[in-house]
Amino acid sequence: MAALITDAASDEKAGMLKQLLFDYVFTRASCQFEGTQYTRRADPEKLKEIFDKYASVEQNGERFMTPDDFVRNYLGIYKSENYNPKTVYLLGSILDTSKDGLISFMEFQAFEAVLCRPDALYITAFQLFDTNGSGTITFDEFEEIIKHTTLHNEIPFNFASEFLRLHFGKDKQREINYAEFTQLLHDFHEEHAIQAFQKYDKNKNGSISAMDFNNIMISVKSHLLSEDVKRNLVAAAGGTAGHQVSFPYFMAFNTLLNNMELVKKVYLNFTKNNAGLEVTKEEFLYAAQQMSQITPLEVDVLFQLAGFIHADTGRITYDDLELIAPHRPTKFLSRPFAEMKAVKSPAERSIGIQILESVYRFTLGSIAGAAGATVVYPIDLVKTRMQNQRTGSYIGELMYRNSFDCAKKSNKA
Amino acid sequence: MAALITDAASDEKAGMLKQLLFDYVFTRASCQFEGTQYTRRADPEKLKEIFDKYASVEQNGERFMTPDDFVRNYLGIYKSENYNPKTVYLLGSILDTSKDGLISFMEFQAFEAVLCRPDALYITAFQLFDTNGSGTITFDEFEEIIKHTTLHNEIPFNFASEFLRLHFGKDKQREINYAEFTQLLHDFHEEHAIQAFQKYDKNKNGSISAMDFNNIMISVKSHLLSEDVKRNLVAAAGGTAGHQVSFPYFMAFNTLLNNMELVKKVYLNFTKNNAGLEVTKEEFLYAAQQMSQITPLEVDVLFQLAGFIHADTGRITYDDLELIAPHRPTKFLSRPFAEMKAVKSPAERSIGIQILESVYRFTLGSIAGAAGATVVYPIDLVKTRMQNQRTGSYIGELMYRNSFDCAKKSNKA
Repeated sequence: MAALITDAASDEKAGMLKQLLFDYVFTRASCQFEGTQYTRRADPEKLKEIFDKYASVEQNGERFMTPDDFVRNYLGIYKSENYNPKTVYLLGSILDTSKDGLISFMEFQAFEAVLCRPDALYITAFQLFDTNGSGTITFDEFEEIIKHTTLHNEIPFNFASEFLRLHFGKDKQREINYAEFTQLLHDFHEEHAIQAFQKYDKNKNGSISAMDFNNIMISVKSHLLSEDVKRNLVAAAGGTAGHQVSFPYFMAFNTLLNNMELVKKVYLNFTKNNAGLEVTKEEFLYAAQQMSQITPLEVDVLFQLAGFIHADTGRITYDDLELIAPHRPTKFLSRPFAEMKAVKSPAERSIGIQILESVYRFTLGSIAGAAGATVVYPIDLVKTRMQNQRTGSYIGELMYRNSFDCAKKSNKA
Repeated sequence: MAALITDAASDEKAGMLKQLLFDYVFTRASCQFEGTQYTRRADPEKLKEIFDKYASVEQNGERFMTPDDFVRNYLGIYKSENYNPKTVYLLGSILDTSKDGLISFMEFQAFEAVLCRPDALYITAFQLFDTNGSGTITFDEFEEIIKHTTLHNEIPFNFASEFLRLHFGKDKQREINYAEFTQLLHDFHEEHAIQAFQKYDKNKNGSISAMDFNNIMISVKSHLLSEDVKRNLVAAAGGTAGHQVSFPYFMAFNTLLNNMELVKKVYLNFTKNNAGLEVTKEEFLYAAQQMSQITPLEVDVLFQLAGFIHADTGRITYDDLELIAPHRPTKFLSRPFAEMKAVKSPAERSIGIQILESVYRFTLGSIAGAAGATVVYPIDLVKTRMQNQRTGSYIGELMYRNSFDCAKKSNKA
């Protein structure tokens, strides 16, 4: 590995990114393989070297990064002329926990440490919302960030809703601590989906059209949709009575997508880890009763989706489940290390670097996956990058597909 | 096994119940062990024999059971003088799918067939709500049954809520089919908990007292609470700031209890099925990220509960998870068969019979477990029985504890 780092010295940024990210990936990778060590950190001296390269401000002999230094120069995103300064400021202030507008080396180091924690994504999201660094989130802080998301622009969230009243109190005076915030972020997403349904249910008769269903899912639940599911949204909804999607169907569809990891467990449990075994709906229903949170309607939706994606044989295998919900990011994190070892030629190495870059973006970007798509996804951290590469890919694809694919694609572009 | 059935002939009812139930238990047991056969049904001739013993009405040469015959004489519940005729009628009409007030042999047989289906509990619940047998559930039907539950009496459900508007439409004209009903039943329970929180949050500041939290959980979520959790509700809530339970904490607590099977999977996955391995909060948090629906706050609640129940070591083992959420009913269904084999003496046999009886009640009673406590639990199918036995046990205990314990207890009484 040392040789690889030296070889890449000509590309300073990539080299440093790689160092930082390699440590990060290696840390996570070693968690996977050994299961004991979680916080193997980057070498402080190497980290300081990286920091100093980008820290453009000096005050009383101490160097600082501006949000611009970190986001545009160090991360290398939002490089275009017409970038949104507010977005860059918000992203930079995730690290700036003192909220003085500048990122000190200690803050940079602390952020690197956060990345080693199992709840890194939630902590990062919390720091994004806690704009005054008080350690709690007020209603105003919550509203400010949500209003900046593209998600809110597409389907406005009702800030006067009972949901937010329950969290912040009727006078909006209650403040939310970190642990509570993680739950709020989790439940917020369900609430937003319900609000979207209400918005499209214009006649208030408890159903929406197949096209509106498609629009809601693409807008609000994009992070949960694989390409195969996206292509079959209208077909799935069209299979319902009168091409109308009822509220229970809508709920079942969303709950199923949220619970696909559980669904996979149920499948593997039933087939005793035989991923090729074909399972009928009745068999799956029986297996699901062992973990009774999966309803018969969710099982219906599952088999219906699998039927549209695959041939409609009335049976599913593990492959169908993977098409509906590809690997989650954390599973991916253990791969690059193994793959890196085999890398020899400069061309292959550049793929390796891009994998690591992707992981980094992923760390910031995948909050969407863990905690609801609202947070970083709409801020377009990844989207911008993808659009610059003109691959025409959807964000969702990057969010949940193997980043290795992504690196290969960008290489071709 | 045949010997056992003959021996018990002196107690007709028990013998017949046993026959029916043995078939049922055996069926489920064989599912567990062989995984291919799900619908091994009772012998029709034996079933007819049982039916005829209790069918008190004869019309045009055909015999019928009244709801009273089935519930009070055959099941042997609601035997006391001051029983509620409405409850008996509702329970009996689960079988009476033609809704003519009488149970034909075909209906009796159909019900026995339903018990073999993996979604038996949902189907039974649907037949309970579909009081006119139309195959769909109207708002009025839904309201009628819910209003008869003790749950509604304790914490009235708001029938004008947005939740029901979304399901039945603003004019309450939309009808719910079976699949949709399973989702409604599932989500209804969450909605009821939220409504309960709103009711106790009198100042509308987004929090309730530890005592109110205790009351809500005992009323609405009793079916999810083990004795150990019940004993520690106030302590758990008291550990929160100002002895107030915030809405996110309330949601996390309920979500955690709903997802305990998933939590067990996460634990076993992480420890590679080593049930004795002590796992720290950080380790669990890491493992939970693999199935990212578990939030850090839920993990906090989990370790807090385990700390109160067990000693607060900051670590959990599988035993702690079992104390929080004992085995679910479907897991139990595979046991009696193995246990029955070893039964020799009449005293032991009577325990066996009671196990089978329990399973039968369980089938009707455990809808609560699978689909929300609202349906049969409040109708007191099991509660009455337990009270008659003067064991002083909670319903929740029977609902989720090993029925074998229950049989042993009633034997002592």
